[in-house]
Amino acid sequence: MADSEFRRELGQQLRVDSVRVSEKAGSGHPTSSMSAADLMAVLLDGYLRLDYERPHDPHNDHLIFSKGHASPLYYSMLKAAGAVSEDEFLTYRQLDSRLEGHPTPRIPPTDVATGSLGQGLPIGVGIALAGKRLDRLPYRVWVLCGDSEMAEGSMWEAFEHAAHYGLDNLTAIVDVNRLGQTTETMLGWDLDTYAARAEAFGWHAILVDGHNLDAIDAAYAEAVSTTGRPSVLFARTEKGKGVKAVEDQPGKHGKPLDEPEEAISELGGERQLTVRVAAPDTAAAANVFSTDGGKLPTWEVGDEIATRLAYGEALTALGALRSDVVALDGEVSNSTHSELFAEAHPDRYFEMYIAEQQMVAAAVGMQARGWLPFASTFGAFLSRAYDFVRMAAVSRADLRLSGSHAGVAIGPDGPSQMALEDMAALRAVHGSTVLHPSDANQTARLVGAMAEQAGISYLRTLRGKTVVRTGPDEDVRIGGSRTVRSSNDDQVTVVACGVTVDEAERAADALAADGIRARVLDCYSIKPIDATALRDAARRTGALVTVEDHWPEGGLGDAVLDALAEFTEPVVVRKLAVREMPTSGTPDELLHAAGIDAASIADSARTIVSRRNGAG
Amino acid sequence: MADSEFRRELGQQLRVDSVRVSEKAGSGHPTSSMSAADLMAVLLDGYLRLDYERPHDPHNDHLIFSKGHASPLYYSMLKAAGAVSEDEFLTYRQLDSRLEGHPTPRIPPTDVATGSLGQGLPIGVGIALAGKRLDRLPYRVWVLCGDSEMAEGSMWEAFEHAAHYGLDNLTAIVDVNRLGQTTETMLGWDLDTYAARAEAFGWHAILVDGHNLDAIDAAYAEAVSTTGRPSVLFARTEKGKGVKAVEDQPGKHGKPLDEPEEAISELGGERQLTVRVAAPDTAAAANVFSTDGGKLPTWEVGDEIATRLAYGEALTALGALRSDVVALDGEVSNSTHSELFAEAHPDRYFEMYIAEQQMVAAAVGMQARGWLPFASTFGAFLSRAYDFVRMAAVSRADLRLSGSHAGVAIGPDGPSQMALEDMAALRAVHGSTVLHPSDANQTARLVGAMAEQAGISYLRTLRGKTVVRTGPDEDVRIGGSRTVRSSNDDQVTVVACGVTVDEAERAADALAADGIRARVLDCYSIKPIDATALRDAARRTGALVTVEDHWPEGGLGDAVLDALAEFTEPVVVRKLAVREMPTSGTPDELLHAAGIDAASIADSARTIVSRRNGAG
Repeated sequence: MADSEFRRELGQQLRVDSVRVSEKAGSGHPTSSMSAADLMAVLLDGYLRLDYERPHDPHNDHLIFSKGHASPLYYSMLKAAGAVSEDEFLTYRQLDSRLEGHPTPRIPPTDVATGSLGQGLPIGVGIALAGKRLDRLPYRVWVLCGDSEMAEGSMWEAFEHAAHYGLDNLTAIVDVNRLGQTTETMLGWDLDTYAARAEAFGWHAILVDGHNLDAIDAAYAEAVSTTGRPSVLFARTEKGKGVKAVEDQPGKHGKPLDEPEEAISELGGERQLTVRVAAPDTAAAANVFSTDGGKLPTWEVGDEIATRLAYGEALTALGALRSDVVALDGEVSNSTHSELFAEAHPDRYFEMYIAEQQMVAAAVGMQARGWLPFASTFGAFLSRAYDFVRMAAVSRADLRLSGSHAGVAIGPDGPSQMALEDMAALRAVHGSTVLHPSDANQTARLVGAMAEQAGISYLRTLRGKTVVRTGPDEDVRIGGSRTVRSSNDDQVTVVACGVTVDEAERAADALAADGIRARVLDCYSIKPIDATALRDAARRTGALVTVEDHWPEGGLGDAVLDALAEFTEPVVVRKLAVREMPTSGTPDELLHAAGIDAASIADSARTIVSRRNGAG
Repeated sequence: MADSEFRRELGQQLRVDSVRVSEKAGSGHPTSSMSAADLMAVLLDGYLRLDYERPHDPHNDHLIFSKGHASPLYYSMLKAAGAVSEDEFLTYRQLDSRLEGHPTPRIPPTDVATGSLGQGLPIGVGIALAGKRLDRLPYRVWVLCGDSEMAEGSMWEAFEHAAHYGLDNLTAIVDVNRLGQTTETMLGWDLDTYAARAEAFGWHAILVDGHNLDAIDAAYAEAVSTTGRPSVLFARTEKGKGVKAVEDQPGKHGKPLDEPEEAISELGGERQLTVRVAAPDTAAAANVFSTDGGKLPTWEVGDEIATRLAYGEALTALGALRSDVVALDGEVSNSTHSELFAEAHPDRYFEMYIAEQQMVAAAVGMQARGWLPFASTFGAFLSRAYDFVRMAAVSRADLRLSGSHAGVAIGPDGPSQMALEDMAALRAVHGSTVLHPSDANQTARLVGAMAEQAGISYLRTLRGKTVVRTGPDEDVRIGGSRTVRSSNDDQVTVVACGVTVDEAERAADALAADGIRARVLDCYSIKPIDATALRDAARRTGALVTVEDHWPEGGLGDAVLDALAEFTEPVVVRKLAVREMPTSGTPDELLHAAGIDAASIADSARTIVSRRNGAG
């Protein structure tokens, strides 16, 4: 069979299989698959270089379905490539199947989960950056995009960054079938405007008839031979192509075909073609950076240093210890202090400018290639990338995030710059770790621990200086806590983290002057939290005051309550947190105004102790 | 004084005042203000039409500082316009000052808070849409943008939507001073590329020397006379313009000048110019839509209907009751059922395509003009706009959000489509309301209540049908709950919401068969939660099982624990929630796999009852 005849048949097989598997599952997006079937047939047969038997080979090309709802097409390709059997193929969307409604890494060689539109391309930028600058291997990254998702701003973050970094190993394939879920896209089939946008963003744009196999082949050849900048195919296609009942029809999105048997017949029936996908170029070994070694920094007890600076110093040291550590920042590296890493390890630092979605997506892409990215910006601005963090969990990504400028303690810049919901948001990410150290020694140890931690870990740092209380050799670990002070006859426990530890200490001093003994716990690990220490404190003191520079919901206080939810002895917990919208002011003024300073802590402790004494 | 001489002096005054006020505050962004001073001098003196004495006049133009860190310039303009006194001006960044580090609506006529880059322009699109399509008034929207924020994808969402809707009443002014916080922007002073991008996105682009007053005037005139599409000025400027020590120098971002007195002298000293800002065109009255009246829908007890459909029907009815209600959707209106509103009230429906950030930003802009926007998409995808929701709270916005497809109960589409962190994220927004009804009658009543609710309210809806249990005349209110069953000798309380109410009912039946009496509470209001009902249940039963289709962090269970934090009687709470990453499957399979179905609830209830009986 000649190439184009084979590809024509393969395209029809991908369509038939997309129809079959959606019918079997009773749901899915066959029409969104059928529009891109010819594009993928040519890619699979002629351009993709991927050893499906060695799905984690570093030399492999990467194929990301940014339009993850076209999963029937994706799995049909895996079947055609021999990576899934017919039996497994038909488990699509069933419980325990690796073939979920939208692709996830549960089915190799899938790098990342997709299904939230506008994420596949920015993640592809991360993999392509890894290929160029980290692995230094000639693999290519292919990303199948929907035209509807071109409305997502994150796509344009990807466009600008890919061009800025000259990622000619990246090819986007936009399936312009013009029909979204409910309506026509803003641009319809106006390929010229798409091309003008892409070119203005520094890409090489190629317009192609997405159902002309020879034209598709030529377009891929042109993309592969384009150097110095990424390429994008804008392919004019028809949704539901090949079946008249649905072809280019509105109202046919996201559901099995009404007449699947007739459709399969119209498409020429089932086929059992297999594709010998080209092998990757394995000539070169993946780059490994040389490192100098050393150890994580420590500080003397009594030193004053901002935890954000400790983060920068610790990350820089970690970069000397481990050659796989990389850093990214959202153009605030002199605030987060990732600039120290950039200076020490320029080959492993990536400036992502003010594009937090692209920053997180690039990190997800890099970890898919085995690198250890740490991505930093203001904690408040990580909220910009929350959907990317959410999806990173579905991707089973190992991702380290650092957010600086926590809470009202930043002072005069005002609430737009204050992270006040970050602990809540990051706690509510599956499998996450949330850390908020109060001093530099804790910070450095936790940065080291994050490098070993699976899943998504988040380190929250402070703008202002705090005094080092933790000895350089103390046990600091994920899930741990630090008992700042305790005695056998404590009457109340103050649970603090970050900047409020200092306030708690001063509150305990004030309480001691009143004859009230307060235990102080520094819960630098918010998730997992040290339930053992909390239950012990609850048992011994029966009254806890939690205090955090964060909204009352979802942060330290709620983590403490969760740890005590099934505690059977009587315990009262008073949560201190930021309850009114802060303004500008000095850090001390704002901590006081929020009711989370030493005076407020002491007042609350007095109240609950006296109430219990009154009750008892 | 001739126009251009006055404007030259005014520009210098704005610079001097920016230097002065940052020096007085000890922080701020004077150099980022100085680059845009000439642009703003001409705007204030020649083009802005705004009655500062009537800051909420609907005819006023709107000026948004998307580069909110240039607040010294913004407040200098207010001072020059007579809207703030010299005394108040010098309170910049002090506690209780209306002049916060970044602008907020605390100082009229500021429409919205800025300071998270890339938000001002998308919000400006919302105000401009309101001007064109809702108010139908000739006011203009002017947005001062930084060049660094052009890296944010949200800016390009704004570009595409503004062009799509033909917003020729919108002018963006990009202050291309080329220097970001730490480094040069990706494009530097490459104005041609900026222009090519804007033109490709359908805007009229004007390149201008941002320090040539006549050129700036001509550029504004060109913008104002351009019809059918929005205009953007790309102004080549110098950061710190006018003071050699900082002019176009790196490392001068975000701090007072080292030598303010010399700088002020170099700028020609202090001036006391005032500007007579042009009055708005008040000829026409703002449009008011006519409505048909009617009432919110109700359903018979026993009907089966998805709460997302009830949302669509209730919103449509609300639109007939209130002429100020508008709806926006992220191209999933046949899933959220906002399509019903679109069909009934096409003039008040806005398709925002797959651009959730722009959707929320447009809603924020519309509410700034007094409209009541309801914005809907999948709950999972609202996470894409989390930073916009966060900032909407700083803007004191009244904003209604609806997220459909809650939790694992959606079934086969898989985790990318499941809202599992939405209640945590939305609870952790200041002043928010979080609602998750279990049936259609609750939904309709809560939609009605949302229209009256200040701040940001969020309604979480279900994909699948649930049976109507709530009578059409029952009391359903924000902060309320529904006692599904109770008796005087209940031994345990099951607290549920949404899809888990049905599971809780079935669990209670199973427990009753075992001789265990279970109270069932439907906490459809997650924030505020019905603390009275919960404390009563805790007092009477001493044991609670919470069950939610959501991650364990930050949702129903944590809200219940918070309500009981200071409860002094012994109570045990077991939280059931989704603890493993879900996959595809049927709704029933996934509820069971997550341990939040009737069987899991009954098991947990049995365990804590028997444990207490054993202990007691």
